[in-house]
Amino acid sequence: MSGHDDPIDLRSDTVTRPSTAMREAARNAPVGDDVYGEDPTVAELEARAAGLLGKADALFVPSGTMGNQIAVRAHTERGQELLLDRESHIYRWELGGTAQHAQVQCRTVDASERCVPTPEQISEAFVAEDLHRPGTGLVTLENTHNYRGGVAVPESHVDAACDAAHALGVPVHLDGARLWNAAVALDTAPAALAREADSVMACLSKGLGAPVGSVLAGTESFVDEARRLRKLFGGGMRQAGMIAAPGLEALDNVDRLADDHENARRLATGLDAIDGLRVPTPETNIVVVDSEPAGITSDAFVEGCVARGVRCGSVSEYTTRLCTNLDVDRADVDAAIDRIGRVVRAATE
Amino acid sequence: MSGHDDPIDLRSDTVTRPSTAMREAARNAPVGDDVYGEDPTVAELEARAAGLLGKADALFVPSGTMGNQIAVRAHTERGQELLLDRESHIYRWELGGTAQHAQVQCRTVDASERCVPTPEQISEAFVAEDLHRPGTGLVTLENTHNYRGGVAVPESHVDAACDAAHALGVPVHLDGARLWNAAVALDTAPAALAREADSVMACLSKGLGAPVGSVLAGTESFVDEARRLRKLFGGGMRQAGMIAAPGLEALDNVDRLADDHENARRLATGLDAIDGLRVPTPETNIVVVDSEPAGITSDAFVEGCVARGVRCGSVSEYTTRLCTNLDVDRADVDAAIDRIGRVVRAATE
Amino acid sequence: MSGHDDPIDLRSDTVTRPSTAMREAARNAPVGDDVYGEDPTVAELEARAAGLLGKADALFVPSGTMGNQIAVRAHTERGQELLLDRESHIYRWELGGTAQHAQVQCRTVDASERCVPTPEQISEAFVAEDLHRPGTGLVTLENTHNYRGGVAVPESHVDAACDAAHALGVPVHLDGARLWNAAVALDTAPAALAREADSVMACLSKGLGAPVGSVLAGTESFVDEARRLRKLFGGGMRQAGMIAAPGLEALDNVDRLADDHENARRLATGLDAIDGLRVPTPETNIVVVDSEPAGITSDAFVEGCVARGVRCGSVSEYTTRLCTNLDVDRADVDAAIDRIGRVVRAATE
Amino acid sequence: MSGHDDPIDLRSDTVTRPSTAMREAARNAPVGDDVYGEDPTVAELEARAAGLLGKADALFVPSGTMGNQIAVRAHTERGQELLLDRESHIYRWELGGTAQHAQVQCRTVDASERCVPTPEQISEAFVAEDLHRPGTGLVTLENTHNYRGGVAVPESHVDAACDAAHALGVPVHLDGARLWNAAVALDTAPAALAREADSVMACLSKGLGAPVGSVLAGTESFVDEARRLRKLFGGGMRQAGMIAAPGLEALDNVDRLADDHENARRLATGLDAIDGLRVPTPETNIVVVDSEPAGITSDAFVEGCVARGVRCGSVSEYTTRLCTNLDVDRADVDAAIDRIGRVVRAATE
Repeated sequence: MSGHDDPIDLRSDTVTRPSTAMREAARNAPVGDDVYGEDPTVAELEARAAGLLGKADALFVPSGTMGNQIAVRAHTERGQELLLDRESHIYRWELGGTAQHAQVQCRTVDASERCVPTPEQISEAFVAEDLHRPGTGLVTLENTHNYRGGVAVPESHVDAACDAAHALGVPVHLDGARLWNAAVALDTAPAALAREADSVMACLSKGLGAPVGSVLAGTESFVDEARRLRKLFGGGMRQAGMIAAPGLEALDNVDRLADDHENARRLATGLDAIDGLRVPTPETNIVVVDSEPAGITSDAFVEGCVARGVRCGSVSEYTTRLCTNLDVDRADVDAAIDRIGRVVRAATE
Repeated sequence: MSGHDDPIDLRSDTVTRPSTAMREAARNAPVGDDVYGEDPTVAELEARAAGLLGKADALFVPSGTMGNQIAVRAHTERGQELLLDRESHIYRWELGGTAQHAQVQCRTVDASERCVPTPEQISEAFVAEDLHRPGTGLVTLENTHNYRGGVAVPESHVDAACDAAHALGVPVHLDGARLWNAAVALDTAPAALAREADSVMACLSKGLGAPVGSVLAGTESFVDEARRLRKLFGGGMRQAGMIAAPGLEALDNVDRLADDHENARRLATGLDAIDGLRVPTPETNIVVVDSEPAGITSDAFVEGCVARGVRCGSVSEYTTRLCTNLDVDRADVDAAIDRIGRVVRAATE
Repeated sequence: MSGHDDPIDLRSDTVTRPSTAMREAARNAPVGDDVYGEDPTVAELEARAAGLLGKADALFVPSGTMGNQIAVRAHTERGQELLLDRESHIYRWELGGTAQHAQVQCRTVDASERCVPTPEQISEAFVAEDLHRPGTGLVTLENTHNYRGGVAVPESHVDAACDAAHALGVPVHLDGARLWNAAVALDTAPAALAREADSVMACLSKGLGAPVGSVLAGTESFVDEARRLRKLFGGGMRQAGMIAAPGLEALDNVDRLADDHENARRLATGLDAIDGLRVPTPETNIVVVDSEPAGITSDAFVEGCVARGVRCGSVSEYTTRLCTNLDVDRADVDAAIDRIGRVVRAATE
Repeated sequence: MSGHDDPIDLRSDTVTRPSTAMREAARNAPVGDDVYGEDPTVAELEARAAGLLGKADALFVPSGTMGNQIAVRAHTERGQELLLDRESHIYRWELGGTAQHAQVQCRTVDASERCVPTPEQISEAFVAEDLHRPGTGLVTLENTHNYRGGVAVPESHVDAACDAAHALGVPVHLDGARLWNAAVALDTAPAALAREADSVMACLSKGLGAPVGSVLAGTESFVDEARRLRKLFGGGMRQAGMIAAPGLEALDNVDRLADDHENARRLATGLDAIDGLRVPTPETNIVVVDSEPAGITSDAFVEGCVARGVRCGSVSEYTTRLCTNLDVDRADVDAAIDRIGRVVRAATE
């Protein structure tokens, strides 16, 4: 629980501090030079992650962005199209990396129905290679879907998208930055959600609380290629076991994401009860607040919250995101509801 | 007019053969080494094109694709976004060149309302530069709009799009492959349609009938940069006056595009009267035939037409494109209507 | 012959004006839409060029630069190394296109011995693919070698370089912008000089006098890939037969390059006899003048020549290039010698 | 000291294990989300590194390769040339990243004289921007020079290279992966060696013994741009203080590099006394062994060493590299000499 005067930080689940167990793990980790493939802790993390994700092999990378960008590059040829939801993290927040690193063209669909493209959307947006068009080279999915409010996409929808892509001869990469949250929310295994995807990236540093790092999993030959590209990107690290060790600890935290989800629901219920706010029930740990009924722009809302000790982030003109996480307990949630209530009342009186 | 047994070629206005005047012009053109800037015919063409397009300078390029791709590269920084209609030629049929040549990310809107993005679409799709996003670097428009059926976009819509982009600090490139057709259809000057655009590409080799080439116009500094990029793309040519001369002749053909438009309307009227075909009245020289009522797929439709001496091209499952052009006269149009009528009757009886 | 007051233009063989035969050929050429593969004149030119170069197929491109850059892109993967002479045209004068179009890294050798890398240089510079290095993906040769003075590289040296590359599993592209000159100087066939190369580019627009264009030849699958890349580069042209026709005429000019070579030797002998100039005997049509003994910088030399009606180009501090060509006859050569003699005497008296 | 049966690992100074102090530092580090700029330990490391390197600001990156590649990208425009020694790490061992990330063309010189290009080499290799050439955009230097044997390049040579580049308007990046070793060997400050460079990268993970990470330093605006590019590369990390803390400890290890250097000299002296080996006196911590006199290829040499418990790495046919480091003490050195003596005797008897 945050101290009395500490701000309650709900900006993102990336802000969590490593636990004591993680810090101890870092201190005690057996390490080696991972560029030479000699770090036992990294090897253990990669093996365990591969197992959890149901893939033959995995690679430790310093960020989810690097994992996604390596995957896009590894799966595609220059000029091909990448088919994805227009609200995808890969499309919105990775600095146009798909054009810069992989020289592919994005073709977006509006996946507001399922958060992943439907089979029909994939069929319609698919481009066959011809004289004028290099064709669709990759489909990417995102689960949970960050910008659409932490939605946990059920296995059936993921599988349907994968099947549709595969039927067209197109591989699928799954941006599973918060795949663990999806698995917990859907009461299934991460591997089940990634089963039909050709590769999957999952973050250790968000809800699981690791300080640094993500894993990218797939076939052995895919991971071999990814390892080479990691070096090209500058992601080859030496005694990386020091950060892989907290990552291993983080993998023990999957079950506790249920607490974040419960806190998120509690937060949403409390906020929705405030006059002037509209807050749908969250599926995982991302709460999206609409303050338009109160006539408060999200910029003003965020400013007011910060002034009263609650940190959060503007998403669009009247929409604000709050993200429960490892460092926020039930008491914090109640305090946040209380403080935000005052913000709204102060603004609307 | 095509001979008795010759197929009537309505696939595209790119198939036209150069006229005798163009051939004579090529034979007689004064030339020099244009890479040294010494070809007087190229210089004359560039000056005249700049004047017609209302820009300070212009550059002769071997294709419209090169003109568009150079413009995208010249206006943008790596990683920025290019905002354009999802049915744009630049997006659909230039081999993903924007990612390959300029490393920009496309953000598409559905411009079915005006064929160019509306000001609201531009404002909504605009991305401001921030830590995670390089921001919108360019808007491109297309006039006439090829894939949407040769629609001539009026000045007011072009200007509105340009104003919306400029208000956000974003430059605009106009893909005017068939800008001449738009000007004729709207009874205005090409320069008026390009006035608010920062650069404009127009083709000499489509309706105007030149064998080869396009022009890219803009400010002097833009054209200087474009000239350098043309060399990078391998578009620097030596005694290019030999093909610029027919291009100059082609510029005299602007007014005769009215004949193509009249032929297109005649063709559409005739085809729409055939049971089983739906053919909207064309604005310029592109006729789009829907053969779904007759239950004929466009592939079957094209095959049937070819068998009876009319060449055309499939656009989507039930949609076929026919394009009037310099080599097709009124008698050809009547013959085409007659032949296509037989195709449909044969297929539906 | 240039008229009495006309400057004698020895800057390059790119400045030649198309002959009457070429102009007639352009006027009369049967043409079609080459993007649809329907231009008979282009087809004829490509077939004839393929035959002359001893390859299965060929592609017409608007410039030698485009031909070279397409070849580099087609043969390599991103990040691989391109091994070539440090004075190559591809390395020096194509705007760093190999990094921009193909994302390859150049590894240069100093081929001053043979103008093409020796087998030893290739073996030493070869990089095997490993974890840190993508490896050598292509060797390019140049014949005649432009910057090294129009040197005609004999078949044995070309073959030795190709064999060395092939022994390492590396393909070879031959930049034969002036391959015709090499063949004439060595009294052999162009095909013999290109026999061991996997692809070859040859220009129609230099000594052969065509106004525009080059050909890129290789296997059928290579040319298929090159055709697609040509479109990406914006080099797809419509009724390109109008410029292919002069190119066909140009192919009849191969034998007459012997005149340029004789003129070049005559020019070199005449200039070498001038006090203060050092002029080695040229092998083909490029004469390199060293004015250091006279203490005249090449900038001053060029300026003096221009003032007296001889155009030429500075290469380095004291070195100037003069290039005989189709538009320069024996009388022009004698006049040039006379005029340059005055330049030197005026500067040194 | 390595245990009795443990192999002595002299392959590289990248293999060192983090010290207890580093491990404690990791455990105890105050951290925050560094992508939001809130990690105090990272901030402290960046500030301290900037001070040591004499620059306004610095950026923590996961590897030296990323630091170098970001610097090349930040300083250059597409197509420009990067001038550097042909034996540079950036050119040899970073997967052709300069072409892939920055689309620049490398122009190499043979810096065997000073390990950095001389002013004359820079002037000669400099390319001015013109119509055909984008010009030289950056010079990179390396100190100590890895492949040339850990040579410490004195300030005067570094400054001379920088001055020559600056006189031509070209910025300079210094690859100081082992700048600390150079400073210790030359008894000067790292900042003095980097003073004239526009940016400098230095590794925490080699001789200094940190598990992960490097710093990239320069002006504030350069580091702002680098921070954005770090995100593009996927190098933005969250609670990176966990690895920055050992990095701060590592900065206390600069002085102890003198031990590595003394050990390297002791090792070289001992090995040079072995019949059949030629071992020049090292300047820093890299010992280069020539086993040609003994007729032992480096592959055989390495194999023999490994069999007797000394790990090292082949550099070329007869050359092997041994690198002293934090985990190797004087007794290890003596043991290594003894073991290698047996290897040579066994092979030559």
